[in-house]
Amino acid sequence: MSISIDRQSTKIGFIGLGVMGHSMASHLLEAGYNLHIYNRTREKGKDLLEKGAVWEDTVKDIAKNCDVIITIVGFPQDVEQIYFGEDGLIGNVHEGACLIDMTTSSPATAARIYEEASARNVFSLDAPVSGGDRGAREATLSIMVGGDRGVFDAVKPLFEVMGKNIVFQGMAGSGQHTKMANQIAIAAGMIAVSEAIAYSRRAGLDPDTVLESISSGAAGSWSLSNLGPRMIKGDFAPGFYVKHFIKDMNIASEEADKMELDTPGLDLARSLYLRLKDMGFENDGTQALYRLFEEEDQDRN
Amino acid sequence: MSISIDRQSTKIGFIGLGVMGHSMASHLLEAGYNLHIYNRTREKGKDLLEKGAVWEDTVKDIAKNCDVIITIVGFPQDVEQIYFGEDGLIGNVHEGACLIDMTTSSPATAARIYEEASARNVFSLDAPVSGGDRGAREATLSIMVGGDRGVFDAVKPLFEVMGKNIVFQGMAGSGQHTKMANQIAIAAGMIAVSEAIAYSRRAGLDPDTVLESISSGAAGSWSLSNLGPRMIKGDFAPGFYVKHFIKDMNIASEEADKMELDTPGLDLARSLYLRLKDMGFENDGTQALYRLFEEEDQDRN
Repeated sequence: MSISIDRQSTKIGFIGLGVMGHSMASHLLEAGYNLHIYNRTREKGKDLLEKGAVWEDTVKDIAKNCDVIITIVGFPQDVEQIYFGEDGLIGNVHEGACLIDMTTSSPATAARIYEEASARNVFSLDAPVSGGDRGAREATLSIMVGGDRGVFDAVKPLFEVMGKNIVFQGMAGSGQHTKMANQIAIAAGMIAVSEAIAYSRRAGLDPDTVLESISSGAAGSWSLSNLGPRMIKGDFAPGFYVKHFIKDMNIASEEADKMELDTPGLDLARSLYLRLKDMGFENDGTQALYRLFEEEDQDRN
Repeated sequence: MSISIDRQSTKIGFIGLGVMGHSMASHLLEAGYNLHIYNRTREKGKDLLEKGAVWEDTVKDIAKNCDVIITIVGFPQDVEQIYFGEDGLIGNVHEGACLIDMTTSSPATAARIYEEASARNVFSLDAPVSGGDRGAREATLSIMVGGDRGVFDAVKPLFEVMGKNIVFQGMAGSGQHTKMANQIAIAAGMIAVSEAIAYSRRAGLDPDTVLESISSGAAGSWSLSNLGPRMIKGDFAPGFYVKHFIKDMNIASEEADKMELDTPGLDLARSLYLRLKDMGFENDGTQALYRLFEEEDQDRN
């Protein structure tokens, strides 16, 4: 049993038309794929339907009618629902179909999808992404893939339409684990950036001038260069939502616990972001972490 | 009273021929400056003397004989000794001379040097650097300068021989404060990088392949790209010494305390590096933080 992709005949199902999913689905459509879409809110797919996508009324319809099904939804519980629910993907796809979950979700869920899918002769990959709304829009996402290499090779043309840095990471769950490593590398780093800018301001420096000195050297990071200036301006619009980052850190933290790996930096970041959420800022972008350091300034004045 | 630099007639004093200082002094000599040197261990200046530098036997001799004096030594107490000691710079330089401390030292010390120097009609700047041994060797250092702008402008040609990214940050102490912001931006980031690599390995991924996926995106940082691979290889050679990083974090932490700024990320990094030092690794490079996460792996096997 093998899998192959054909632009005309292969029916691609796409579930989840949020900020990320909508851009990714658009790229597939523009590349000429036969795209069937489903989303909780039909409205979000309107423009795609005008460009030739086919609407399916339920997840089950997507499952019945499509050969390769891509999902990118909000939370792990949504993934579980879509895959394992009675009218979900696993129970309703045909043999030889391929399920690709691009949600950032738990490695354990990815492994379970793989197991249950395999038992029904269905292929599956976990393929979470990084690069944010901009990466999705510009098709420059980093895509981290776990599952069987042969399946990865077969569906790679689809990934190439949506991203740039596409790397096979190993067996089922490895894409999700890689994404967790990505989020862990960001987590404590966000504290570092917030503190450095707060320190600069408190010391009476001009934080933008400080960035000129420090952002191209050993202190340099994507976060410092891209989110630092937004912190300085007080621009906390998302980008990447605080609530989603907390979700990811929760998963990473559970996985680290299972491995008996201490992650004090992740734990600290998670506790600070939970505090930020408690303060009512879960719909801000992750750079809003800076609020915790600013707030003290305000207390003092 | 003003200051001007002339390649032939201005006598440049240079104190501190460690890994950084030696390269920096070499560049000044190669650029044709009249260089007088002093170092605790004369041996380290031997090749510079062969290339035309003039040896001075004491700090006091440097003070008496030079017009612009650059210092880059190990610890704040060395700076205090060299500047404020009885036979030190402040008490022995001539009016109109200029003192430039390029050691990473405390902003408070920089401010005190400025005050005492000003009272004797002596100019001064604090001008710590980042970029490490390689930046010093290749003259690509970032130089962060505090003091009077006119003095900065006058001696800038000297900085241009030693570095690339040369930024005036404000009044005396601002160079040191900027360097502290730099170290704060690195501190918690090093935890993030260590944890991400430890997590990858523990999850059964190939950490080098993980870096392929994550180092060019939102998780990207100088530390991840440059120190991550050394962590993976178990190459803990310095680079930048653990003991010097601890020194810097101590200063940053004291300054943050004075400002009543909470820096939980810096505090955590400092406590982990102190643990690393207690384990006997203070002469490793900063990437040795990874040992704390590896160690647990070894315990488990």
